[in-house]
Amino acid sequence: MTPPPACVFCAIVAGEAPRSLVHEDEASIAFMDIAPITPGHVLVVPKVHAVGLADLPAEVGGHLFAIAQLIAAGLRSSGAVRVDGVNLFLADGAAAGQEVFHAHLHVLPRYAGDGLEITRARRPPPSRAELDTVATGIAAALGRLEGSPVTPPGRSAARAPR
Amino acid sequence: MTPPPACVFCAIVAGEAPRSLVHEDEASIAFMDIAPITPGHVLVVPKVHAVGLADLPAEVGGHLFAIAQLIAAGLRSSGAVRVDGVNLFLADGAAAGQEVFHAHLHVLPRYAGDGLEITRARRPPPSRAELDTVATGIAAALGRLEGSPVTPPGRSAARAPR
Repeated sequence: MTPPPACVFCAIVAGEAPRSLVHEDEASIAFMDIAPITPGHVLVVPKVHAVGLADLPAEVGGHLFAIAQLIAAGLRSSGAVRVDGVNLFLADGAAAGQEVFHAHLHVLPRYAGDGLEITRARRPPPSRAELDTVATGIAAALGRLEGSPVTPPGRSAARAPR
Repeated sequence: MTPPPACVFCAIVAGEAPRSLVHEDEASIAFMDIAPITPGHVLVVPKVHAVGLADLPAEVGGHLFAIAQLIAAGLRSSGAVRVDGVNLFLADGAAAGQEVFHAHLHVLPRYAGDGLEITRARRPPPSRAELDTVATGIAAALGRLEGSPVTPPGRSAARAPR
């Protein structure tokens, strides 16, 4: 996708905006969030401009996750910040809290008393029948989706029997 | 890793516990959360027992993310629940809110007024020098980590020049 002229993450990828770099490879870049939710908050960003999950190639999405795993391990072993746990978080769309419309995966060090609170509405738990109905609806939608299916690890689509 | 005898997600993977199935492949399974944070809350779970990010093979982690992308698209197009945005969320460790110690990626449909609130501590933003110091510490830790590096998409490690 052609990036908008003022995409701040494209500018960071291009080295045209300040960044505190943690990792860089051919497909991704990871740098410190300038307004950390918790100390040590890292963003993992695809080099290709994608707004969200729908236009992010699945192989790039998978790579972002693998890099986030690596960053989590690096955070835990670095001693640079306190890390008793780690959250990975991605917001796809304004209704989900997305603020920069170039897809990014948050890596958040956590510790008791870090000030991050996640609260939810109390609702009666759905019945199994209700869960089954929703699951069936989603599964049917997956069946209608176009595009190449995701290949599980260890099974190469190119080598699959024909 | 050998699963503990009472791992509920291993039981779900094995079909030995009730589940409202959305997707299944050789490496992963996706099903409805029985206590949804928002309506339509799906969990994407590796079939292999891994406690968290540290013992989850990177190729399996990447696959979970790609499946989560697929589920997000399915949720959006299904009409089964309201979806104005989607959050992906993973909790690695009790300090990060992990409750079931078999790694899982949450896929959360979002809409305004869905009752999910994320609040954070107010802190003065760090200086660029402070960000650079933490970034340098994490990058150094990444350099010390053992194991095979993550291969960016489009570049096969097996085919890389030696």
